Amino acid sequence: MPLWKVYTPADAYSAEDKRAMAEAVTNVYAGVPIPKFYVVLIFEEMPKDTCYVGGVAHNKFVRFKIDQIARTVPGPTLREWWITTVDSVLSPWVKDRGYDWEISIDETPFDLWSLQGQLPPPFESIAEKRWVKENRASPYTLSEKLPLNLVLAPGVADHG
Amino acid sequence: MPLWKVYTPADAYSAEDKRAMAEAVTNVYAGVPIPKFYVVLIFEEMPKDTCYVGGVAHNKFVRFKIDQIARTVPGPTLREWWITTVDSVLSPWVKDRGYDWEISIDETPFDLWSLQGQLPPPFESIAEKRWVKENRASPYTLSEKLPLNLVLAPGVADHG
Amino acid sequence: MPLWKVYTPADAYSAEDKRAMAEAVTNVYAGVPIPKFYVVLIFEEMPKDTCYVGGVAHNKFVRFKIDQIARTVPGPTLREWWITTVDSVLSPWVKDRGYDWEISIDETPFDLWSLQGQLPPPFESIAEKRWVKENRASPYTLSEKLPLNLVLAPGVADHG
Repeated sequence: MPLWKVYTPADAYSAEDKRAMAEAVTNVYAGVPIPKFYVVLIFEEMPKDTCYVGGVAHNKFVRFKIDQIARTVPGPTLREWWITTVDSVLSPWVKDRGYDWEISIDETPFDLWSLQGQLPPPFESIAEKRWVKENRASPYTLSEKLPLNLVLAPGVADHG
Repeated sequence: MPLWKVYTPADAYSAEDKRAMAEAVTNVYAGVPIPKFYVVLIFEEMPKDTCYVGGVAHNKFVRFKIDQIARTVPGPTLREWWITTVDSVLSPWVKDRGYDWEISIDETPFDLWSLQGQLPPPFESIAEKRWVKENRASPYTLSEKLPLNLVLAPGVADHG
Repeated sequence: MPLWKVYTPADAYSAEDKRAMAEAVTNVYAGVPIPKFYVVLIFEEMPKDTCYVGGVAHNKFVRFKIDQIARTVPGPTLREWWITTVDSVLSPWVKDRGYDWEISIDETPFDLWSLQGQLPPPFESIAEKRWVKENRASPYTLSEKLPLNLVLAPGVADHG
């Protein structure tokens, strides 16, 4: 998570193209930051005449179908920034090569997700920061579920 | 968007079958109306014994998995009408040919979607009508984001 | 529905492996209970170097992408129980064989779903119980849409 399904024309991209695109996409997410190993891209080649756009076979079309967690992109400004950013990162492999392309992102529930048998730790938690650093899933404790920057608000009496 | 993934038994449909089905499906959406080029169908053949229904291999099963934008089908009556309409349009390729079939539609966020690097214009906007007519994505202005039929309500003072 | 897409390395699982996994998964849902034929698994082999995790090709990775109906898992306790249960059921095919794996579940609208041209009956309805028993979709009447255990609350006057 995120899971990217990349539907491409047959033979559109070499293994090196795929690796480079995966690296570029992963770096965008790593900048959030989220653990790099959360980012999965699966490339699927569409044989000739199996993709139709507007009722007509389209053999130069790349379709990106992305699943993200519901909490990742809050608010209209961030959402527009995100889809625009994703689009510009992909330009070298679509626009610049003469393909048509379309991107859509779905947001799926955070609490129905597991990795190596672990429920991923909360965003910005101590455990998540450790996962970022170690770049792999591992067990974590209850206290590691707390936010890295824990701010406890003062009680009413403290305001006196 | 909509994106249709059509999982079919191997060799169930010829290229002409696929084209005809894509055209029929596209026409349903075009009647809404939305731009025809929004409608994408990707056909995926399932090799023998890779599809299981109820724990048993099922090699005569067609599974339609559809992603639509969240705002397209408001209210229970329209939703029932829509799924029923879709089902009847598909009959010639499933029911009439002796396949079992299942359809499910997911609704994904409108604001996390782009086409040729453009965020699609609002529904029923001037820009969308132009996209319908030109049947391709292109840049649009702020004023083209307004509804085609713009009705400004009178102010309170006007009721006097 | 549920629809399971199981993305696997090429040649990871034999047809018998697939059947056994499908049966195990189906039994979990059958215990809810829901009709067995609701449970669909589609296995998709990923050719070498078409799957990337964290920007690097990963050829020992199994990705489960699951669509369920929105109403199936209410509340945080049940949701944690569910994803944990699913995970343990899959262990023999992933953890025990040395694969990395990830599971995510999306929840899609109940009312945009059809099976053999039928809108599935309400959960726990008389019709659903009949579908469980017969293990196939068939027409049902309005009265069969009522809950199997119909409890009518007394009117205000009855409390006197």
